[in-house]
Amino acid sequence: MDLNERTIKEKSIYKGKIIDLTIHDVKLPNGKESKREIVTHPGAVAVIPVTTEGKVILVNQFRKPLEKVIAEIPAGKLEKGEDPLLCAKRELEEETGMLAENWTNVGSFYTSPGFADEIIHLYLADGLTEGKENLDEDEFVERFEVTLDEAERLIETQHIHDAKTVYAIQYLRLQQLKNR
Amino acid sequence: MDLNERTIKEKSIYKGKIIDLTIHDVKLPNGKESKREIVTHPGAVAVIPVTTEGKVILVNQFRKPLEKVIAEIPAGKLEKGEDPLLCAKRELEEETGMLAENWTNVGSFYTSPGFADEIIHLYLADGLTEGKENLDEDEFVERFEVTLDEAERLIETQHIHDAKTVYAIQYLRLQQLKNR
Repeated sequence: MDLNERTIKEKSIYKGKIIDLTIHDVKLPNGKESKREIVTHPGAVAVIPVTTEGKVILVNQFRKPLEKVIAEIPAGKLEKGEDPLLCAKRELEEETGMLAENWTNVGSFYTSPGFADEIIHLYLADGLTEGKENLDEDEFVERFEVTLDEAERLIETQHIHDAKTVYAIQYLRLQQLKNR
Repeated sequence: MDLNERTIKEKSIYKGKIIDLTIHDVKLPNGKESKREIVTHPGAVAVIPVTTEGKVILVNQFRKPLEKVIAEIPAGKLEKGEDPLLCAKRELEEETGMLAENWTNVGSFYTSPGFADEIIHLYLADGLTEGKENLDEDEFVERFEVTLDEAERLIETQHIHDAKTVYAIQYLRLQQLKNR
């Protein structure tokens, strides 16, 4: 079956600082028409920074859509045309003040393919040393570090509660069991 | 440090079928002002359906924001006030035509906390039997099943490429290693 939905007409609703919103009138596989609400986003990177003691560096950050502070792995948006690995190195230093010697690409994923094109490129970073923190002017975060056991408890209490971070913690636990 | 960002003024940009968009003028922790673009979403459920042979049921679905077909675990939006578990049972049957005897809550996560409040509640479902498929009128999916090894190869080739599904496959692999 051809599952494609062809755009008949599109209308820009909003062009913003981070996201744009466009409505597409589409032709469905059965010939009928429907509307798709599409958020476009520049894409992002996220970094799993692991210390020599096996602890994970997290940042507490207020998230306005949730109206609360949650703990996440360091992350940030791609600049236009920016290489994801260079962006990851920049974001790690900006948000945590740390540099990493070793970088491993652990894949990518779309966060909400039903309504948004945001993709996150994920990296593991170790061999950490102190650089200098340098946050964006509208960015406020608090760095801390936890063991893998502590991170899993933070998932249970929902202080860690976003897709990339629960994925990252599960990734580290899986690697640990594989290498056992 | 108080990381909260207080809303000074908010402006509704769009109220849609699935998402709304609102712009908040906020007061930052340092007293300065900034804007936050916020997508609100009703929330969703996703189901990891596992057969008695240990295979995972996936659905191929065209995702307009990505302009391509990807394979995902069955998922769907919450109706207003709907219980997530009931929604999960409904979505599994609608998208795959299957019923499940055993349901386990495996947690929840926000998909894109920087700009959206979408949360996904995730369930493991086994003891599968055939019910009847009953898709929404604007929904077209193709069901298939894969082993865990095959699913991991689909992640490598990026036919599986969304957060909930890569998380789900990693979850199954982790459970398998824990129970070994």
